[in-house]
Amino acid sequence: MRSAMASAEVADNVIDTDPTVRALEQRAAKVLGQADALWTPSGTMANLIALSLHLKRGDRFLATRGAHVLNNELGSAAWLAGGMPEPLEHDAGPGRPTPEAVEMAAGMADGPYYTLRTTLLCLENTHNAAGGAVTPPHEHAQLVAAARDKGLKVHLDGARLWHAAVALGVPPAALTVGVDSVSACFSKGLGAPVGSVVAGSAEFVKRARRMRQMLGGGVRQGGILAAACLVALDRVSDLAETHEAARRLAAGLNEFGWEVETPQTNIVLAGVPDLRMALDHLGTLGILALPMSGKVRFVLHRDLASTAVEDALRRIKTGSAA
Amino acid sequence: MRSAMASAEVADNVIDTDPTVRALEQRAAKVLGQADALWTPSGTMANLIALSLHLKRGDRFLATRGAHVLNNELGSAAWLAGGMPEPLEHDAGPGRPTPEAVEMAAGMADGPYYTLRTTLLCLENTHNAAGGAVTPPHEHAQLVAAARDKGLKVHLDGARLWHAAVALGVPPAALTVGVDSVSACFSKGLGAPVGSVVAGSAEFVKRARRMRQMLGGGVRQGGILAAACLVALDRVSDLAETHEAARRLAAGLNEFGWEVETPQTNIVLAGVPDLRMALDHLGTLGILALPMSGKVRFVLHRDLASTAVEDALRRIKTGSAA
Amino acid sequence: MRSAMASAEVADNVIDTDPTVRALEQRAAKVLGQADALWTPSGTMANLIALSLHLKRGDRFLATRGAHVLNNELGSAAWLAGGMPEPLEHDAGPGRPTPEAVEMAAGMADGPYYTLRTTLLCLENTHNAAGGAVTPPHEHAQLVAAARDKGLKVHLDGARLWHAAVALGVPPAALTVGVDSVSACFSKGLGAPVGSVVAGSAEFVKRARRMRQMLGGGVRQGGILAAACLVALDRVSDLAETHEAARRLAAGLNEFGWEVETPQTNIVLAGVPDLRMALDHLGTLGILALPMSGKVRFVLHRDLASTAVEDALRRIKTGSAA
Amino acid sequence: MRSAMASAEVADNVIDTDPTVRALEQRAAKVLGQADALWTPSGTMANLIALSLHLKRGDRFLATRGAHVLNNELGSAAWLAGGMPEPLEHDAGPGRPTPEAVEMAAGMADGPYYTLRTTLLCLENTHNAAGGAVTPPHEHAQLVAAARDKGLKVHLDGARLWHAAVALGVPPAALTVGVDSVSACFSKGLGAPVGSVVAGSAEFVKRARRMRQMLGGGVRQGGILAAACLVALDRVSDLAETHEAARRLAAGLNEFGWEVETPQTNIVLAGVPDLRMALDHLGTLGILALPMSGKVRFVLHRDLASTAVEDALRRIKTGSAA
Repeated sequence: MRSAMASAEVADNVIDTDPTVRALEQRAAKVLGQADALWTPSGTMANLIALSLHLKRGDRFLATRGAHVLNNELGSAAWLAGGMPEPLEHDAGPGRPTPEAVEMAAGMADGPYYTLRTTLLCLENTHNAAGGAVTPPHEHAQLVAAARDKGLKVHLDGARLWHAAVALGVPPAALTVGVDSVSACFSKGLGAPVGSVVAGSAEFVKRARRMRQMLGGGVRQGGILAAACLVALDRVSDLAETHEAARRLAAGLNEFGWEVETPQTNIVLAGVPDLRMALDHLGTLGILALPMSGKVRFVLHRDLASTAVEDALRRIKTGSAA
Repeated sequence: MRSAMASAEVADNVIDTDPTVRALEQRAAKVLGQADALWTPSGTMANLIALSLHLKRGDRFLATRGAHVLNNELGSAAWLAGGMPEPLEHDAGPGRPTPEAVEMAAGMADGPYYTLRTTLLCLENTHNAAGGAVTPPHEHAQLVAAARDKGLKVHLDGARLWHAAVALGVPPAALTVGVDSVSACFSKGLGAPVGSVVAGSAEFVKRARRMRQMLGGGVRQGGILAAACLVALDRVSDLAETHEAARRLAAGLNEFGWEVETPQTNIVLAGVPDLRMALDHLGTLGILALPMSGKVRFVLHRDLASTAVEDALRRIKTGSAA
Repeated sequence: MRSAMASAEVADNVIDTDPTVRALEQRAAKVLGQADALWTPSGTMANLIALSLHLKRGDRFLATRGAHVLNNELGSAAWLAGGMPEPLEHDAGPGRPTPEAVEMAAGMADGPYYTLRTTLLCLENTHNAAGGAVTPPHEHAQLVAAARDKGLKVHLDGARLWHAAVALGVPPAALTVGVDSVSACFSKGLGAPVGSVVAGSAEFVKRARRMRQMLGGGVRQGGILAAACLVALDRVSDLAETHEAARRLAAGLNEFGWEVETPQTNIVLAGVPDLRMALDHLGTLGILALPMSGKVRFVLHRDLASTAVEDALRRIKTGSAA
Repeated sequence: MRSAMASAEVADNVIDTDPTVRALEQRAAKVLGQADALWTPSGTMANLIALSLHLKRGDRFLATRGAHVLNNELGSAAWLAGGMPEPLEHDAGPGRPTPEAVEMAAGMADGPYYTLRTTLLCLENTHNAAGGAVTPPHEHAQLVAAARDKGLKVHLDGARLWHAAVALGVPPAALTVGVDSVSACFSKGLGAPVGSVVAGSAEFVKRARRMRQMLGGGVRQGGILAAACLVALDRVSDLAETHEAARRLAAGLNEFGWEVETPQTNIVLAGVPDLRMALDHLGTLGILALPMSGKVRFVLHRDLASTAVEDALRRIKTGSAA
């Protein structure tokens, strides 16, 4: 990946001519089943651009409880994109609301002028706070249909869409059917240093480019970063191994008596009696984990050594970082 | 009330010298147990000013599910005041969250830089969407204490605080203990044509005055309106009769087989099989009601004739507006 | 006026049925040559609503140097309506830019995606900071034509449009030809206690009603205020006397050696060696004046006694408030 | 530079541990004479963060006419940072206002509550729209002193500060004396592919880090980019050659009868009879130039071949790209 970066062909991407960035955007659009795509420096910015374009001042939007756009983007969906959120429960399973809940929460589109208007459904696949849980294609389609029925647009936070596609054995585009926009990241499980995309119609991406510039996300010779993202895209299928490693980690932790469900993708959420003590202890063992949803959250990625899981389990067992 | 308005002493309130407005503000501040108060043209603006001053870009705030600031102010708490809301369930009773839920939702104040910060608790007493339900003084105090413990500020949406005070038999100030700001309306149950206040510390009101001007809420000879608000303040105790009328309405509707709980104040929520059909039917009978929380919502006020309830029940019984 | 207020027919204007407010809105729309109009509690809110609806995030708008929307609305055109202002010089005369300056400042509409877009021209007639100066119909038409040529919308801040119409001897609608929206006030020279309107197409007013509610400008029994505004509208022609009084004041001040140009309407700007000392001195004489554009600004209105000017001049001459 | 990037030590910079980014931030802070600094993906974001932190809703800020924050950042200073701009003329020379103009425009800090407050002066050195003009240290100091006198904060847009320092023969920190914040870019004349910094006090940078995350500017393994920025910092003195090349270009264009002033740094502004025709013609010759301030703007950078200027002049002379 670093050699691809070192030899990338570049130009000034603010004035829209960097060939490597453009190649990435076009390839990502195709993989995501959209007409066009735009590179952004982060997934947060990709989501922020989409919400800013879809929402008008004070529009209500629906998002799953614990969604990244609600809990992990510093409130920008509200203060900057201007949306009033309504959380949906995970009634159909981890990370998945029911179509009925979408319809109920959407309410009436034709209320009097002084009533809130719900205009957007925001989905997340895989769902970070739900431990990397996947939404399968038919449920995705039902949720989109429910939203459409009520006149809502749909944005998909697909930061980890690659994981969902690999876990479900479907192409990523099977998980974006009917959406107005989708974001995806190259810098998490796929291992690229920097970069995400937001994809949608040609008109959407045209407006997104302007919004990116407003936010200061326009960069000059972005091709160096895009080169790494292109390499990452080649390696999506490697995630199957990462998911297998996550299952080994979960199984090992279960043997130690930790409360862990079998992971669907690359995130392992472990219930512990004392969260802060557990995180501190892991830190002394040289194991990096963060808190999420009241549990210890381990995230695995493709560049971990093949023995990393076994090494971590041994350290936890022996209580020694050696 | 109209004669008080017709003879009110006025001046230019933008440059802050209208004597009648000032008299109202000082009296309202005292009644609400605050250092100072500011007249506003609506309760929505009163809440909006308070939230705008308490919240910084992207701050999370807690509010009861169905709160006026969440559902009935066109999303301005998000897009204009900049807050990311987190709804609290009514676990302690209608309109009332538990102190434990406040503490849990507040989370850690000392999280890393990239985490949401919860900085405000917004209470509502009486609670509109919960059918005019009251929060008694000791529960109010516990909720404020829980918020303080977590470093949160507290705003009280007291649009109907007068009703809560009368229903509980306590002075309004007993229901504002410990808050940073409180809004109250003169134009709903009390019958003044236009006007609300937002009250708090002298410093808060100084900043609120500027914010009101920003929003276009500074008016010139406001004394004419304030005169009516002063009359309204004299009549708070009359609300006991209004509440009694609401109970008569609820009892009558129950006899007809409607699903109605005994109202605590002046709002009667009635469950019906088909909401839209019921509202249309009431309309043909000359009875004004609006939908709320999936039910028919009747609101009573002090200027209704003493026979209004019996008249409405008779119309419903006979199916005739005559 | 107060008796009209005391007997006004009212209803709840938030749910849009107050007959007196509606009568005012329809009459004002007609007088202003627009399809519909909306009552607002202040001229600041009327302008703010118009700018918020016309501007998208970051759009540039043109306004005359010293315009009320630039200098006297606490920056809400920028922070709330989202516009980036570009001031135009008064090259065609006090309060009046040239059509050429409008075209030049508008720039290219078809610039690349990363360039500012100018989308709105904001005019002001009469122009407050220019001492109540009027823009005659043919110049107004030329400015609108220049804006249209460049694809700009046009908003007219007509807080004092009545004065311009009276001074020019034309109906107000002759001064609104071609605009997308116009605001006008009843609470300044016309003497109503509270109230303004913003007028435009039916679609514009529909959106404006929602925006007013967002800002907290929706009031309940607004008819009491609207009744006064209707009376004010009947009295527009009285302003000729007010303007005559302003000219007498200017002539008198000139005799004392103050530097005063003949006023076009009801505002008298007087240059003095030491502004703050002059204002303080006038205060001790019981004469209310405020600073503007580095001068003493006197504003006359229709309810001043017929001897008020002579009384003020006498006080200044004798240095005594008696 | 690419080899430095390929071997950079990295970590996850969102959770604030990437060692190369940190090294760059600390070195840049030192060079810029500030306590700390923060990497950002663009200079636009660096300025946006600073303005967002310095300005409160509706605050007025002063900036030179044509400043990057006014004309080249899509209005984000207004709609996102919330500021109402007031342009200052270049009365002391290209890119430089006078201290008197700063004092005059700042106005009174103690005006009544309904008046605009001016809280920030934004300087730009070198000044892009003024053709890369420099502000020398003593003028910078006088402008800062005037701002301080009036209680204003000072932000310096130092995207091209390196050029000013080299042209003036002073260290960059001599041009940042007394500022509250300064931005600087590595991706323009210095040739790094992506990256800027915003620097100031430790407290400012702490808040800036949060604001960067809000805008989606937090990246993961930023070290790869920071490595290039570190190399760029080593090469600041090379800009003397770039400036010399700019002077040769200007001299050559003058010989052809173009209207060009001797450039102070790396920007050459050339007046032509027909701007669009000139840019199109240059395009056919393979010479990239953009319009600015109504002129053709050539920008030179350190990675141009030593014969690039002579080559361009030859192409213009012969009218052939060969």
